[in-house]
Amino acid sequence: MSTIARQAFQPDPNCALIPQTVPLQLSGERFRIIYRLGGTEEEARARARDICLEQTVEFPDELVPTGPIRDHIIGRLEYFETRGEGVHQAAISFPVETTGDDLSQLLNVVMGNISLKPSIRADNLELPPSLLDRFRGPRFGRTGLRELTGAAQRPLVSTALKPMGLAQADLAELAYRFALGGIDLIKDDHGLTNQTFSRFEERLARCTEAVAQANRQTGMKSLYLPNVTASPAEMIRRARLAKQAGAGGLLVCPGICGLDAMRAVADDDATSLPIMAHPAFQGSFVVRPEEGFSHGLLFGLIARLAGADATIFPNFGGRFSFSRQQCREIAAAAEAPLGSLRSIFPAPAGGLTLSRVCEVQQVYGRELVILVGGGLFKHGPDLIENCRTFRKLAEQFY
Amino acid sequence: MSTIARQAFQPDPNCALIPQTVPLQLSGERFRIIYRLGGTEEEARARARDICLEQTVEFPDELVPTGPIRDHIIGRLEYFETRGEGVHQAAISFPVETTGDDLSQLLNVVMGNISLKPSIRADNLELPPSLLDRFRGPRFGRTGLRELTGAAQRPLVSTALKPMGLAQADLAELAYRFALGGIDLIKDDHGLTNQTFSRFEERLARCTEAVAQANRQTGMKSLYLPNVTASPAEMIRRARLAKQAGAGGLLVCPGICGLDAMRAVADDDATSLPIMAHPAFQGSFVVRPEEGFSHGLLFGLIARLAGADATIFPNFGGRFSFSRQQCREIAAAAEAPLGSLRSIFPAPAGGLTLSRVCEVQQVYGRELVILVGGGLFKHGPDLIENCRTFRKLAEQFY
Repeated sequence: MSTIARQAFQPDPNCALIPQTVPLQLSGERFRIIYRLGGTEEEARARARDICLEQTVEFPDELVPTGPIRDHIIGRLEYFETRGEGVHQAAISFPVETTGDDLSQLLNVVMGNISLKPSIRADNLELPPSLLDRFRGPRFGRTGLRELTGAAQRPLVSTALKPMGLAQADLAELAYRFALGGIDLIKDDHGLTNQTFSRFEERLARCTEAVAQANRQTGMKSLYLPNVTASPAEMIRRARLAKQAGAGGLLVCPGICGLDAMRAVADDDATSLPIMAHPAFQGSFVVRPEEGFSHGLLFGLIARLAGADATIFPNFGGRFSFSRQQCREIAAAAEAPLGSLRSIFPAPAGGLTLSRVCEVQQVYGRELVILVGGGLFKHGPDLIENCRTFRKLAEQFY
Repeated sequence: MSTIARQAFQPDPNCALIPQTVPLQLSGERFRIIYRLGGTEEEARARARDICLEQTVEFPDELVPTGPIRDHIIGRLEYFETRGEGVHQAAISFPVETTGDDLSQLLNVVMGNISLKPSIRADNLELPPSLLDRFRGPRFGRTGLRELTGAAQRPLVSTALKPMGLAQADLAELAYRFALGGIDLIKDDHGLTNQTFSRFEERLARCTEAVAQANRQTGMKSLYLPNVTASPAEMIRRARLAKQAGAGGLLVCPGICGLDAMRAVADDDATSLPIMAHPAFQGSFVVRPEEGFSHGLLFGLIARLAGADATIFPNFGGRFSFSRQQCREIAAAAEAPLGSLRSIFPAPAGGLTLSRVCEVQQVYGRELVILVGGGLFKHGPDLIENCRTFRKLAEQFY
């Protein structure tokens, strides 16, 4: 073995088969993951012990050699509490070094292999500064989006270009009317990508120009956000094209492209556009309370780590199944202290109508993007007037 | 509006607010998704209707204008059947054009927004040749991996470098012993990425050389597969480094990096290495039977579309919760006809021991990668001998 120093075999009382020739160096700094565990207390404690192994050494306990790997790499149960019938909470800490240098491996430690086991949900993350410092987070956040749109105090209003199948000229016409009506964030429907009936580059050019034209007429600052979700290289290419074309932001579905891929777009200095994150394909992580992630962790904290400036989620009481409490959790996580990472806007959506615009402001306050899609077409016979009504409803308290 | 022809407003009896100036052109070709739906028959039928809208126009039914969008873009319920108490099956077809030109958008049509709604699971995909032709699929597949390893008939044997925290020299020493013992596929544990205790490039160099050295001694063809899961650009960079260094393949976790990102690595001509797909972070898609994907669809058909040559999953009866039937489904989907896409190896894992190697061959047959991790350390006091025993168990019937 030319390049590898052959080491004397070091027998170990626990497992003689694993060579350990170089001592492990760790900083001693750890981060914590709060898990919700199901089952009896005994089952839940077994799950907690299992997480400690499964997310690090992935080795049967009896095979882990004594020494620093056993003492420090393996997850450590920091506390365990029974919260109710079959519901327990455990905090487990891991060395910051296990997460390597990227979001991908952090996600892997949080929910890699154990995603395959029932009754384990990640509820929260407590990350020390040294780990948070590795993430730039949202490039714009609330402050940046307020500057870009000129909405100093009020909630931002947003809608989507749809339905899928509409010709480019018609999508641009819709974008134009939305912008004339004062919609701040006009995003592609997440189903519009690069189809024969709506090629990305043509849609980008037409809709960007349509919104710019309306802005010239109104003096307002509507932003057009094309959907750039695609394979990794294509997504970066489309994001840069969007910047060059003068688009105002981007729509990204991190459930499809990967959270770290969204982060790469957010961190790309050649793009530098605000990002609305769309929850498509992420539902299986939250649709059951027993597994996956808490709503706040996935759509709040993790969305921020992954660079979203606004996080779209289905509002309670609409055609999806999120509860009011789950939505509040997302809003709280969107602004909870997170090192130097910016606060982001919660963007409730999913069947909202203008009749609910007051209610959502009562629930979420003004740090909010209100996303009304189809509902905007239902309000009255004039789309531009409907948009103006929507905006007035968002301005009324400010 | 300089670049956009302003069109006369075309009132429509269903919805006067949506401009439709250019007729939609579609090929007429459709693909089908088979869904499992929960609830009463009435509820399940409502879910099926909902999927038709939600996955395409994302518009309330009454707002969808008459004409080609209503007639063709919206999903079409092709059949509906009640299979049992609260279990129904529906086949819904969509125009191939809705999927755009990439895997990302195909996944979006299959399970985008509706992932956020309970009691909807995607069970299977029926893709016409025109859609399948867009995917290269596995670059090597079963035949390619058999050629690379020289295993003409028998199941391939595989193991993982671990535990996390081991020094590079020790990981290389393990790789060397595994290869001396005749392990075909020696992969990084999926938790090894680029950590201070195991930097990717150094691990790649050391383990590649260790396996090459063993191959020179034995005349066998063990392959080392480093884990390249990372952010998109870094993943491609690491994959190319792996090729340049002479590694034998790659380990990728598509649940973390995104399925289309794995496909991009598989399609990268500058890499051209076989891929083992690891199921980390994908558990929430399969851990409940009511939502997400069937095991065969996610770990079989979709893994093939995304370029995996072998698909790792937790075997039944181990420390995970997959059933024998679910594992059989994966194996079936790994070889079911799929246009010109290659068959791939099912790679059951997750707590397998040498005592179960005969049983897995009885269940899966010989078209199989048997992945034994920690179990290889338990069998006896000599790791190389344990590997030889493992390989003999895989050779015994051939």
